[in-house]
Amino acid sequence: MSSYAQRPLLVHFSGGSEGRWRVDSMTAVKGQGLPHVARISMAEGEGPATPGTWTLRGFTSNTRYTTRVELTSLNAKSANLARPEATRAALIPIRKSPAWWALAQDERRSIYEDQSKHTTIGIEYLPQIARRLHHSRDLGEPFDFLTWFEFAPEHEAAFDELLARLRAAKEWTYVEREIDIRLQRDG
Amino acid sequence: MSSYAQRPLLVHFSGGSEGRWRVDSMTAVKGQGLPHVARISMAEGEGPATPGTWTLRGFTSNTRYTTRVELTSLNAKSANLARPEATRAALIPIRKSPAWWALAQDERRSIYEDQSKHTTIGIEYLPQIARRLHHSRDLGEPFDFLTWFEFAPEHEAAFDELLARLRAAKEWTYVEREIDIRLQRDG
Repeated sequence: MSSYAQRPLLVHFSGGSEGRWRVDSMTAVKGQGLPHVARISMAEGEGPATPGTWTLRGFTSNTRYTTRVELTSLNAKSANLARPEATRAALIPIRKSPAWWALAQDERRSIYEDQSKHTTIGIEYLPQIARRLHHSRDLGEPFDFLTWFEFAPEHEAAFDELLARLRAAKEWTYVEREIDIRLQRDG
Repeated sequence: MSSYAQRPLLVHFSGGSEGRWRVDSMTAVKGQGLPHVARISMAEGEGPATPGTWTLRGFTSNTRYTTRVELTSLNAKSANLARPEATRAALIPIRKSPAWWALAQDERRSIYEDQSKHTTIGIEYLPQIARRLHHSRDLGEPFDFLTWFEFAPEHEAAFDELLARLRAAKEWTYVEREIDIRLQRDG
C-alpha cells in the first residue's frame, strides 16, 4: 500500500511568535494576504493548535487526480518530510475559484494534468522537493489547499522554478488567492 | 453553477431519543452495527449536534468521479431534500476497505462507474429517490460515507431495488461495514 493510502491526518498551521519554523518572507501572490508573523508551527493530529495570530487547518487524503501509472512514479521518487538537510520550507495556501469547483471530475483532471502537467512537473523535482498536500475547503476554511514543501537550501532555486512552471499553467487561471510563505527551520 | 458546486456543508446525524426522524429499523448489512436508537436528528452547519447515543459527522463536497455528461444528467433529474411527500428516509453509513483507498483515481473510477454503473443506476431512480452524500473519512470518523435518501412511501420498493443493484456490483466488494437505517418523518 502506498503512502498516499494512509488514513487522513489533520494538521494545524499556526502563525504567531512560536514554532520551529522562522518566517523569512510572506508574499501575497494573488488576492488578500495574511497578517505577517514571525514563526509558524505545524501540529499533526486532533490536539489543540498552538495559539497564534492565525491558524489554518487541513487534512491529508487520498489523491484525487492521480492515475496508477503516475502514482507508481510518485511513490518510487517520493521524499519524506523532516529530513535533516531540509532546513527550508514553504507553506503556500491556495484558494481556487467557484468556476473550478463547478467543473466535473473529467474537466478538472483534463486541466490539472492533460493541459497543466501538474503531477508530471512535480515528479521532476522529487526527491529534492518533498511535498505534502492538505485539503481545507471541506472544513469551511478560507483556503482550499495548504501545500507544504521541504527542501535543502541548495534546492531553493529549483523550488522557485517548479512554482514558476505551475503558476504559468492553465490550472493556475483558476487560482484566486495564493500566499507564498518561506521558512527556515531552527536546528 | 450546479448544486454540486456549492460550498461544503457539515452535517451531524445524532441517534438518540430526539429528532424529527423515527427509526423503523436498523440493520447491520456488513460488519459491526450501531447501538439501536429511537430517533435520529440531522443538523446542518457548525453548531453543536443534538445530544445522542451516537453522532456521525460528514460534509457534502464536489463530486469525485462524475463526468460532465453524467453531471448534466444528474442535475437535470435531481430532487431536493425536504419534499413534503418524502416522509421516508434511509441513513446508510458505509466504510470501504484499505484496498479501495490504496487504488489510484483511474482504478477507483473504473470500478465505481465503468464496472459498477453507480451513477448510471442512481440516475434511473431520480427524481423519486432524493440523495445526499456526506464524506466522513477525512474527518477521522468510523465510516467513510454517510448516504442519506428521502422518498415517498410508495417508492420504498424502488429504493430497495436500487440498493440491491448497487450491493450486487463490484464496487460493493470493497465495502467492509454498512448499516441500513430506515426512518419515518413526523409531520
